[in-house]
Amino acid sequence: MTGLRFDLLATDAGARLGRLETAHGTIDTPAFMPVGTAASVKAMTPEAVAATGAPIILANTYHLMLRPGAERIARQGGLHRFMNWPRAILTDSGGYQVWSLAKLRKIDERGVAFRSHVDGSRHTLTPESAVDIQRLLGADIAMVLDECTAYPVAEEDARKSMELSMRWAERCKAAFMPSPGHGLFGIVQGSVFPDLRVRSAETLQRIGFDGYAIGGLSVGEGQEAMLATVEATAPRLPADRPRYLMGVGKPADILGAVRRGIDMFDCVLPTRSGRTDQAFTRGGAVNLRNARHRDDPRPLDAACACPACRGYSRAYLHHLANAKEILGLMLLTWHNLHYYQDLMSGIRDAIRAGTFAAFADSVVRAEAEGDVAPND
Amino acid sequence: MTGLRFDLLATDAGARLGRLETAHGTIDTPAFMPVGTAASVKAMTPEAVAATGAPIILANTYHLMLRPGAERIARQGGLHRFMNWPRAILTDSGGYQVWSLAKLRKIDERGVAFRSHVDGSRHTLTPESAVDIQRLLGADIAMVLDECTAYPVAEEDARKSMELSMRWAERCKAAFMPSPGHGLFGIVQGSVFPDLRVRSAETLQRIGFDGYAIGGLSVGEGQEAMLATVEATAPRLPADRPRYLMGVGKPADILGAVRRGIDMFDCVLPTRSGRTDQAFTRGGAVNLRNARHRDDPRPLDAACACPACRGYSRAYLHHLANAKEILGLMLLTWHNLHYYQDLMSGIRDAIRAGTFAAFADSVVRAEAEGDVAPND
Repeated sequence: MTGLRFDLLATDAGARLGRLETAHGTIDTPAFMPVGTAASVKAMTPEAVAATGAPIILANTYHLMLRPGAERIARQGGLHRFMNWPRAILTDSGGYQVWSLAKLRKIDERGVAFRSHVDGSRHTLTPESAVDIQRLLGADIAMVLDECTAYPVAEEDARKSMELSMRWAERCKAAFMPSPGHGLFGIVQGSVFPDLRVRSAETLQRIGFDGYAIGGLSVGEGQEAMLATVEATAPRLPADRPRYLMGVGKPADILGAVRRGIDMFDCVLPTRSGRTDQAFTRGGAVNLRNARHRDDPRPLDAACACPACRGYSRAYLHHLANAKEILGLMLLTWHNLHYYQDLMSGIRDAIRAGTFAAFADSVVRAEAEGDVAPND
Repeated sequence: MTGLRFDLLATDAGARLGRLETAHGTIDTPAFMPVGTAASVKAMTPEAVAATGAPIILANTYHLMLRPGAERIARQGGLHRFMNWPRAILTDSGGYQVWSLAKLRKIDERGVAFRSHVDGSRHTLTPESAVDIQRLLGADIAMVLDECTAYPVAEEDARKSMELSMRWAERCKAAFMPSPGHGLFGIVQGSVFPDLRVRSAETLQRIGFDGYAIGGLSVGEGQEAMLATVEATAPRLPADRPRYLMGVGKPADILGAVRRGIDMFDCVLPTRSGRTDQAFTRGGAVNLRNARHRDDPRPLDAACACPACRGYSRAYLHHLANAKEILGLMLLTWHNLHYYQDLMSGIRDAIRAGTFAAFADSVVRAEAEGDVAPND
């Protein structure tokens, strides 16, 4: 049934090395997807995003359906052409953002009605319309519409919500028109309850998807509960299909999830941190506003090949942060995305070499050296 | 005496084609200098600024002496290295910004005392310290400290102010240490009074400078009075030295001043406009927020080779403006700076071909077609 070819190439200490083929190029996994919410990875040109090594980005269906509108993007030739990004795009279904951003949500069996956070206009998303909107956008990977639950949530409420999401997943599958290089991923729900997660994973497999995501995490449950849920869920997913942990995370979260068999990630952390003067480095996370960088002629990260590290001193980056210059957030965003792609490339090399566990430990140890606490 | 070689290559209808050699490269004139106030051309990487064709930028001494400090930049190897800009830099003297931004100014014969607009700290600028600060920054072209007068101003006040500026210019010249490829420009003052301008120009020539600027314009006097003042002043400047009209301007202002013998310009207009969704095009100035661009698949300016015009539609640029995406102001700033460099290159080609008057008329006519009034 699949429109996306996936090859599992190697495993090491629970970690998986793979390759996913899409209509817009090959994605070596484990892979990190920069977030391009409103058809732009914030403060980056698409050329710069590509230069970091990212083979795929994520765009938010919720934002794009409201502004500029999916039909409008379709008339402009689809999202790839509209935003000048020739590589792969995964779109979420809008479910999470309706839950976190929209106003006056009303959910029933058919779908969700809400008001736009931009202008208050009324909209609905159903499993069928979510799939249709993602088709109009031209997503290489589309996601099923799901309901998100708050954390913490009573098990009974989590069960009902998960079961609704499974019925919606089935309707999404029915609405999805397969084509080569394009695929639809199911989303496992069930909060932090292992039994619910297992039932959800089994239900989705019965329906059959091109890949399987784990949703509803990174919503306040903490790293331990998050990884425990991944550990209970991932083994119940088919080994020959990609696994995507949504909205995660810090480098240590990614390493922990890769160790538990996850292949794909997305998170706003590298881009958002870049816009608030935070940088990820091989010596830990750094706050460029800190006066200790004021006279420091060294690059941010001597081992990094990104433009921010090749062309500028910490003293200059500190000055840009201090003076609130736009170039500061451009350079730090670029660096952070480059750091994340280097991290993923390091992970893939380590799996290939059979040294993943040692690699992961060394990265987590280095993170503790930064001036930003790893769990901030 | 000069540290800057200048060759006048051709003239046409009052316009001059020249070449200025600095320690950081050759500047073909007429030339436009993008403004990099705080050691950054806002929303642009230095590579992008260079890609627009700019051979020189302007940086503001006032901003840099306050933050991060001239000594600090000197310890980092000077401004070129600090901001990773290998081409030429002109620094102003700080006089204009003290006048327009600083608080509690107190001017006397020695210089000006003021409080920083950033943190209220006390500072002074004297002719000698202004030259010294620009030496610490490593400017290829330094400017004398001058006093700026408001507009309108009584002739008697303008005369006294001009005479003070001339005494300061003499002290700047005495404090300046010449070196190959580095030079000091004098600044003609005298508001809109032709007699004062002529006297100022003659005084500066007696002192002797590497180039001559016309200051104190573009402060509310309007295009007609500005160009009349340029017309009264430029013929009194030596033909074999570059002439720089400070803080000007719109394309029509530049064309009018080139026709009156000006060689160099700086202005925040292309960068500031880019950050407020305005673009200069061969069909006139355009406001990208305007809904008429919403479904327009055409590039901003089909004749432009900049990344914004090569990679994106007006529909996408409108979307970025609407969604307040940082990429929007990055692309529009890039385009506007590219447009200005194309304009200067067109001017130089036209002078070389003896067709400057026709070229200038055609650009001014095209400007009238835009959706932003040329004199807004």
